[in-house]
Amino acid sequence: MRAEIISIGTELLLGAILNTNAKFLSEALAQNAIDVYHQVTVGDNPGRIKESFLNATKRSDILVCSGGLGPTEDDVTASSIASFLNRPQKLHLPTLRYIKGILQNRRMRFTKLLKKQCYVPQGAVILKNNLGTAPGIFCEFIYENQKKWLLALPGPPREMRPLFEEKMLPLLLKRAGLKKGSLVIRSIRIVGLGESQVAQKVTDLLKLKPPLTVGIYAKPGEVELKLMAKTHIHLKNKIRKIETIIRGRLKNHVYGTDHDTLSSVVGSLLRSTRQTIAIAESCTGGLLSHDITNTPGSSEYFLGSIISYNNLIKTMALGVDEALLKKYGAVSSQIALAMANNVRKSLGANLGLAITGIAGPGGGTGKKPVGLVYIALAAPKKTLVRKYRFFGTRPEIKARASQTALDLLRNELS
Amino acid sequence: MRAEIISIGTELLLGAILNTNAKFLSEALAQNAIDVYHQVTVGDNPGRIKESFLNATKRSDILVCSGGLGPTEDDVTASSIASFLNRPQKLHLPTLRYIKGILQNRRMRFTKLLKKQCYVPQGAVILKNNLGTAPGIFCEFIYENQKKWLLALPGPPREMRPLFEEKMLPLLLKRAGLKKGSLVIRSIRIVGLGESQVAQKVTDLLKLKPPLTVGIYAKPGEVELKLMAKTHIHLKNKIRKIETIIRGRLKNHVYGTDHDTLSSVVGSLLRSTRQTIAIAESCTGGLLSHDITNTPGSSEYFLGSIISYNNLIKTMALGVDEALLKKYGAVSSQIALAMANNVRKSLGANLGLAITGIAGPGGGTGKKPVGLVYIALAAPKKTLVRKYRFFGTRPEIKARASQTALDLLRNELS
Repeated sequence: MRAEIISIGTELLLGAILNTNAKFLSEALAQNAIDVYHQVTVGDNPGRIKESFLNATKRSDILVCSGGLGPTEDDVTASSIASFLNRPQKLHLPTLRYIKGILQNRRMRFTKLLKKQCYVPQGAVILKNNLGTAPGIFCEFIYENQKKWLLALPGPPREMRPLFEEKMLPLLLKRAGLKKGSLVIRSIRIVGLGESQVAQKVTDLLKLKPPLTVGIYAKPGEVELKLMAKTHIHLKNKIRKIETIIRGRLKNHVYGTDHDTLSSVVGSLLRSTRQTIAIAESCTGGLLSHDITNTPGSSEYFLGSIISYNNLIKTMALGVDEALLKKYGAVSSQIALAMANNVRKSLGANLGLAITGIAGPGGGTGKKPVGLVYIALAAPKKTLVRKYRFFGTRPEIKARASQTALDLLRNELS
Repeated sequence: MRAEIISIGTELLLGAILNTNAKFLSEALAQNAIDVYHQVTVGDNPGRIKESFLNATKRSDILVCSGGLGPTEDDVTASSIASFLNRPQKLHLPTLRYIKGILQNRRMRFTKLLKKQCYVPQGAVILKNNLGTAPGIFCEFIYENQKKWLLALPGPPREMRPLFEEKMLPLLLKRAGLKKGSLVIRSIRIVGLGESQVAQKVTDLLKLKPPLTVGIYAKPGEVELKLMAKTHIHLKNKIRKIETIIRGRLKNHVYGTDHDTLSSVVGSLLRSTRQTIAIAESCTGGLLSHDITNTPGSSEYFLGSIISYNNLIKTMALGVDEALLKKYGAVSSQIALAMANNVRKSLGANLGLAITGIAGPGGGTGKKPVGLVYIALAAPKKTLVRKYRFFGTRPEIKARASQTALDLLRNELS
């Protein structure tokens, strides 16, 4: 089975918004072993929408559209589908009743524009959108003696995603006679090595051909190796074998798998060793604490932080010795250590983690350039401090420093 | 002039990465009044790459590709261009020398794979990539008596963006006889109103037709109205008039324009009124401080924060009265006020800003549900506290609480 993603919306063509729907839908289809060979984006223009339907019908079995189902005059997807399939539009009464109910709850008036959303191509299966007014539209049709499917979803991601996962995809799999989730994906998450360094260590694996392939993807501060196989039991075993090979080569740089994040892995380690942590941040300005608290339940091990952006706060709130500050400067291994020790003691935590550095773009000097960062960890019987030089923009330097601090903590805990 | 974006990469079709290049290129082309009617994504497959070139050539003047120029066997964009244009591939000596130089600096060996990157279609203009090894490729060709342009850029955004902006786009504008930046875009940034509330107030403006249009876009915690016009002086005046109308209708909800962020606007207000701020965060876990410090130079007005995730820290580090905590609970207007007052005093700032709430998914009760958030501000002669109920996931609630706190501060400062 082959699917094609058709994103509809002039704002996408203007570059005003990022097309996260195409990524989401492609990933969901891949996980169900449905191939996607083309993604196409067109504006809210009936002619070009229908042209894209025709091209897609010629080369794919399943057309998955998103966008253009809203109430405004610009939204022409539903009428374009009706016209393309040569079917009349029909008023869908359950949708009408549903929209009127929503408006009543919100004490808003029903307008002509909203009625437009209730017209759907004849013969379509209509899927209720619990998070908005535009319903999902599912059409089956025949093209050159082949059964084809045309699916239309609302554009806003928070409406589109649950509607697709909970209703549209199950219906498609049933109608097309496909099994759910027949692609197995295993992500190996790696930290502390660049993309090219990882690639060098697994060159042979990256060349594997279907049915089992290995892909490499880089995010700021992290590399991911993605093992993908259309399922059979013996392939599951092979995936396990390749994971073992990768772990053997990348050793401790592998920090987790699948939905793990550095924050969740560090959280589990803290929880299982029953330790608490306090943080002192300077150049990251709160990002490390934000990252740690992105993991639900982090209040079990994360006590709190002191963000000492100004040097006065380093002495006042963190109790860092003023003479030490004057002697070595705020961006130094001595101050990083003092911050980690003091935040640990003053907040009463088992561990203290501290970052001080220069995020830029200003503030750098010849001796202390932008990107220079010290990270220190204070534990009951041990302290350590490391010096780093990060590159990139201000947000990138902040992000790399925070990731690196989490990784340092992970290494000490495991 | 009409351009078409062709994104090349199997990882895009698998949904493994987000296509930020298509957004960036579309936006850059729109700003130069070059229309984009189609974006297409295909995998690293010579047949489908060439098919996309042919389709695009039939309906567009300019083909802008990104991806598939790397050194691995999967990267087939350059050879596909040569084959599509019916031109031989030639070894490009300056690129060869450049790559050898880079490797020497990094003490790495030159491999056969890297030599592949030095082969380019005959007659192409080759643009040096200062941030990577794959050069940009610029081809001019004739199709049905029409001049056409085929541009190929490397896939990694940090290499692609400067190469496009600094070299590829200027060359294209020159060769195609176009003027730089002949589209004027004015963004009006709005906070504190939802997309539908804003739309209701400017329904008439959203219906404007070219040459001057108004678009509406929503991000978490923020709405943007985008005024776009192909330039003539009288349209610049008209843009100004429409901006005045919008400001009249949305009043103080308009917080800025163009590249402003809430963080940068609040920063300017603090700087111009010579005030400093200290922050106390609970449920946002450091995000508000991170947001504030995303603005370069924020050390001028932001002193520091205390992230009191654990209640003990609220008493120990923030000095919140234990009896008060017991009586009202951590998520209450009383505690929010105490946090704001105490952080202001203890860090010696003019202003204290505090957030306490429940980010979820756990921790909610009937009386204090997930999403309940109190935000308080302490100023020399005034304190205020507000209660909010935010919806969404844990990251969304954190983001909305932080944006709302910045907006509260903005309103008090302006």
